[in-house]
Amino acid sequence: MSAAPKTDADGVDRDARNMANAIRALAMDAVQKANSGHPGMPMGMADIATVLFRDFIRIDPSKPDWPNRDRFVLSNGHGSMLLYAIHYLLGYEDMTIDQLKNFRQIGSKTAGHPEYGHALGIETTTGPLGQGLATAVGMALAERMTNARFGDELVDHHTYVFTGDGCLMEGISHEAVDLAGHLKLNKLIVFFDDNGISIDGKTSLATSMDQVKRFEAAGWKAMHVDGHDQHSIRAALEEAHKSDRPVLLACKTIIGYGSPKLAGSEKSHGAALGPDEVAATRKALIWESEPFVIPEEVEKGWREIATKGAKLRAEWEKRHASAPNAAAFDAFLTGDLPADFAKTMADYRAQLSQEQPKIASRKASEATLGIVNAATELTIGGSADLTHSVFTVTKGMTNVSAENYGGRYIHYGIREHAMAAVMNGIALHGGFIPYGGTFLVFSDYMRGGMRLSALMGLRVIYVLTHDSIGLGEDGPTHQPIEHLAMLRATPNLRVFRPADAIETAEAWELALTDRHHPSVLSLSRQNLPTVRAGDVAENRSAKGAYVLREAEGGERQVTLLATGSEIEIAVNAAEKLKADGIRAAVVSMPCWELFSEQDETYRASVLGTAPRVAVEAAGGFGWERWIGDSGRFIGMDGFGASGPAPLLYEKFGITADHVAQAAKDLVR
Amino acid sequence: MSAAPKTDADGVDRDARNMANAIRALAMDAVQKANSGHPGMPMGMADIATVLFRDFIRIDPSKPDWPNRDRFVLSNGHGSMLLYAIHYLLGYEDMTIDQLKNFRQIGSKTAGHPEYGHALGIETTTGPLGQGLATAVGMALAERMTNARFGDELVDHHTYVFTGDGCLMEGISHEAVDLAGHLKLNKLIVFFDDNGISIDGKTSLATSMDQVKRFEAAGWKAMHVDGHDQHSIRAALEEAHKSDRPVLLACKTIIGYGSPKLAGSEKSHGAALGPDEVAATRKALIWESEPFVIPEEVEKGWREIATKGAKLRAEWEKRHASAPNAAAFDAFLTGDLPADFAKTMADYRAQLSQEQPKIASRKASEATLGIVNAATELTIGGSADLTHSVFTVTKGMTNVSAENYGGRYIHYGIREHAMAAVMNGIALHGGFIPYGGTFLVFSDYMRGGMRLSALMGLRVIYVLTHDSIGLGEDGPTHQPIEHLAMLRATPNLRVFRPADAIETAEAWELALTDRHHPSVLSLSRQNLPTVRAGDVAENRSAKGAYVLREAEGGERQVTLLATGSEIEIAVNAAEKLKADGIRAAVVSMPCWELFSEQDETYRASVLGTAPRVAVEAAGGFGWERWIGDSGRFIGMDGFGASGPAPLLYEKFGITADHVAQAAKDLVR
Repeated sequence: MSAAPKTDADGVDRDARNMANAIRALAMDAVQKANSGHPGMPMGMADIATVLFRDFIRIDPSKPDWPNRDRFVLSNGHGSMLLYAIHYLLGYEDMTIDQLKNFRQIGSKTAGHPEYGHALGIETTTGPLGQGLATAVGMALAERMTNARFGDELVDHHTYVFTGDGCLMEGISHEAVDLAGHLKLNKLIVFFDDNGISIDGKTSLATSMDQVKRFEAAGWKAMHVDGHDQHSIRAALEEAHKSDRPVLLACKTIIGYGSPKLAGSEKSHGAALGPDEVAATRKALIWESEPFVIPEEVEKGWREIATKGAKLRAEWEKRHASAPNAAAFDAFLTGDLPADFAKTMADYRAQLSQEQPKIASRKASEATLGIVNAATELTIGGSADLTHSVFTVTKGMTNVSAENYGGRYIHYGIREHAMAAVMNGIALHGGFIPYGGTFLVFSDYMRGGMRLSALMGLRVIYVLTHDSIGLGEDGPTHQPIEHLAMLRATPNLRVFRPADAIETAEAWELALTDRHHPSVLSLSRQNLPTVRAGDVAENRSAKGAYVLREAEGGERQVTLLATGSEIEIAVNAAEKLKADGIRAAVVSMPCWELFSEQDETYRASVLGTAPRVAVEAAGGFGWERWIGDSGRFIGMDGFGASGPAPLLYEKFGITADHVAQAAKDLVR
Repeated sequence: MSAAPKTDADGVDRDARNMANAIRALAMDAVQKANSGHPGMPMGMADIATVLFRDFIRIDPSKPDWPNRDRFVLSNGHGSMLLYAIHYLLGYEDMTIDQLKNFRQIGSKTAGHPEYGHALGIETTTGPLGQGLATAVGMALAERMTNARFGDELVDHHTYVFTGDGCLMEGISHEAVDLAGHLKLNKLIVFFDDNGISIDGKTSLATSMDQVKRFEAAGWKAMHVDGHDQHSIRAALEEAHKSDRPVLLACKTIIGYGSPKLAGSEKSHGAALGPDEVAATRKALIWESEPFVIPEEVEKGWREIATKGAKLRAEWEKRHASAPNAAAFDAFLTGDLPADFAKTMADYRAQLSQEQPKIASRKASEATLGIVNAATELTIGGSADLTHSVFTVTKGMTNVSAENYGGRYIHYGIREHAMAAVMNGIALHGGFIPYGGTFLVFSDYMRGGMRLSALMGLRVIYVLTHDSIGLGEDGPTHQPIEHLAMLRATPNLRVFRPADAIETAEAWELALTDRHHPSVLSLSRQNLPTVRAGDVAENRSAKGAYVLREAEGGERQVTLLATGSEIEIAVNAAEKLKADGIRAAVVSMPCWELFSEQDETYRASVLGTAPRVAVEAAGGFGWERWIGDSGRFIGMDGFGASGPAPLLYEKFGITADHVAQAAKDLVR
């Protein structure tokens, strides 16, 4: 690079510009080699990234999980090469040049979009637009909440987000931005890649939004910045650091910066530039290195960032070593429940077995949460403005607010999608176990976030009540039909539909102790009798399904399968059948996923060889697996209706009589 | 009411106030009788409703489907009693006092939330928050688009929306508001019920949004209004009518207005006030009638609105009678495809049978749309910023914009959820057939809107491409796994997954000709060979599944079931099996829902009695129905990965070899 001038025409230090050009070159070269990927964003945001990483960010590539590191979230995740290039330049041990050469290939660390857990230092999975931003709000909130518990010495970092037009057009961004502004998350700094281009062309095809004004309306500090002027970026960031509110830096950039023909065009967004244009771009950037080769002095510039980060981390470790609450902090970060948690829950089951409450499972969930939230301080509750319907708050929980980050209950507002993503962010930040409630039908509104909980394998718990036509008068818009199938079909997600207070307690225990799966608790609005009394020594829901009531007086003639609120119906049907001399067993199936994981022998012992009738106040899609060719399903075959719940069960034929009749038809 | 003063203390005409009080009384009485429902909103918005209906709205209750009526959308649908009360007061023939007395009971017209098609004059189903507002954007856009085609004489009406904090917190509102501002839909007027209360309590628990500034940022005109001052409301509406942009009227109101104890409290939101408080409210409102009784002079005030509406409608009919384009307008409104459409499509199948293209089904869809969009002008295309990936635009289509409402292609922006709801609104407005595209995985982002398409039975077509791991390098965030199951589990939705260009054309024909179901077209990114050449006389996809290739030389030994891109794999597997002397049939199942509707005989003839192997590059959830107890499924059992598509198929074992091996295992 010795031939290049020391400064560019615009007065920018050539070394600094070359640090940015290193990102550009690696991005365009990797995309070119893969012939797949998105060069435009990394080339456009390279100057911003250079300033942010060189002068501000506090991370240590040699210890990517340093608890007090700044979080960096690439919400416009299609620009993954920006992240991979930076990680390579900083010297993350797993991000070798060969990984960059294998961009988007099977088995490489350099997946098409950044995948949490796939390479070191990836804070969250991004790609579905808007998720990264909303997840970052969760991280920034978690930072404040952790700070409130452990103090500035141990917890005091920023959350930085790169975001594009796509993220900001998505609805979830509105929910997250509104919440972040309300909670005054001033350590959240968002860079908007304001390049005026989206996939279809100019953003003026589809939006006239004044983003700065929009963010200001939500209580943010917002500024325009020249995204290629490193001095301006630095000055803006310095100002941002003084803000008492979250900050949007709307950075005017050029997508595909450096490419003579494609810069400023949507053509640079999602495809390789082509060999000729890559060559032309090298020339325009005065970048003389071969593909995947970084000049020593440029690499040196990047490695200095890593050295500085290691020093910052060492200083923090020193503070940590002398902090009186270091042990508590470390314990918090493990996310471990108390050692006696299993006993606590077993005792609680024994108590319920005595009391035999007849309550809605949403109320049973509230009661369980009373136990849980007293046993651990890791749980962070919340709901999407349905607190006293989903019963997610317990005694003594105070609200999380800008004035009280030490609270344990989050009023997410009517923002299901942000709730899911914010919970992901809280879980990713460490320690806390977030749970949040809404109606089951509104899982529709947060599918995007729930899927990422599952893909990342996060301990996030969804409390989804009003889980069938049993909610009654609110009618078909509020009555879930396909939602259990939708959630059960989702990989890595555990769907619990407990039948009574005991199974509800069991479901909570299983959800809380599962470190690598999100869980759904599908809970009733209507009251349910206790059906498991007297059989509470073990958590029977742990096997996913079990024989709740065996046939008496001989071999089973029929097996009745049910979940949740329909267990009562199945038990009543078994009684009717008994009166008619038919031997029926009742199998409770609170969690299909766990049952699927049991061995063949156990599953066969539960399901038996007799014909089966399943009953669930939902669509039957997927039940064929359990009832088999000869089985019958009693449930919904269309949308619900508005009316009192007991009448709806009659109307749709989800009754003990119908179950018993179906059983008789099979036995005959 | 003779004892009451002529004007209230605030100078408002007592008669006008009593028109509003009639809504309040009916709402609180109906909720009280049902002991279920939401009195707070109708009581809070009654003054606004009175002014809007008395002085502005142009509807004719005796002809609720008058094409040029103003559209009124209750986005905060939980306040359904406001709508029902108004309909009763206006004299809609189906909305009798007995219906109000049967609020929220099975079989009544007065469902918990307004359900489209359930009672006259309900323009759209609302309840899931934000949907009404976004759907209304679609209606307002459809009005401008229809106007551009047929002129002011025939089409020139407003769309009015009532909305609460809930709707405005939901992400979908951001998407819809941004789009409406961009498209300058100045005949859209939204009343925000700014009562500062949501279910959990004060909205200050969860938001600090400056809504007026927010809407201004999106290009709206926005004003604050006193929602209980009828003079101010009228003045604001007059100003709104002059706007060149959509208008937000942020109306400061008191939830549960009139209730001495509960006004201004979340306690009036979602439960009956209780008999004592209902009585106290009567007194406070100086409302002396018994429950469900409306004083004659108050009723007269409301009925005058109906009379005026009938007159306006008659004037319009006169204009219509003399309009040169009336016949074309009427034909448009039927939504009928050309009489020779079936022949057009049959000819096209014949052409494809000759050409035997090997193209991605997304490309096949584009080619079909070329035929369709030339055959009818009813179709309105669009995509959520993936136009050149989902191939939804065809030659000659111009963009819909504020300058060109006559266009046929909508750049929805990166706003899947609003796209779904806006399409619902366009379909509801009449005539047009909206279709819109994104990636299948992003159906997650628009589930809420898709479900309402299904619940309302609207002809809305979702073009969902990149429908499996076959999309390759973008990786697991972009690769649908559970989405086919999620959509197939949804009542009333048709999910098509065509195997080649011929089936793609068939799927389009079926989607377009189905007036009462939304459809999904699940389409591949990767190329697919033509497998149906020579067998195109009829639309075989119409039966949902059919024998694509019968076993040769004897009875079937095994049946291979597949859809879409995996048909090629099934055919190859059948070839391999044939080479090994095993007689395999291949069944294509492009639409499970249509197949389920066939008679038992047909279904049995297709599925056969031999053991079955199914192959689909998706999760297997739900396939048990078709493969039965003895069957095998070859597909995905977890999330995907990033890499070239062919290698991913190898990695996950979705290959002809695996299918053939599974078949052999079953045959042996």
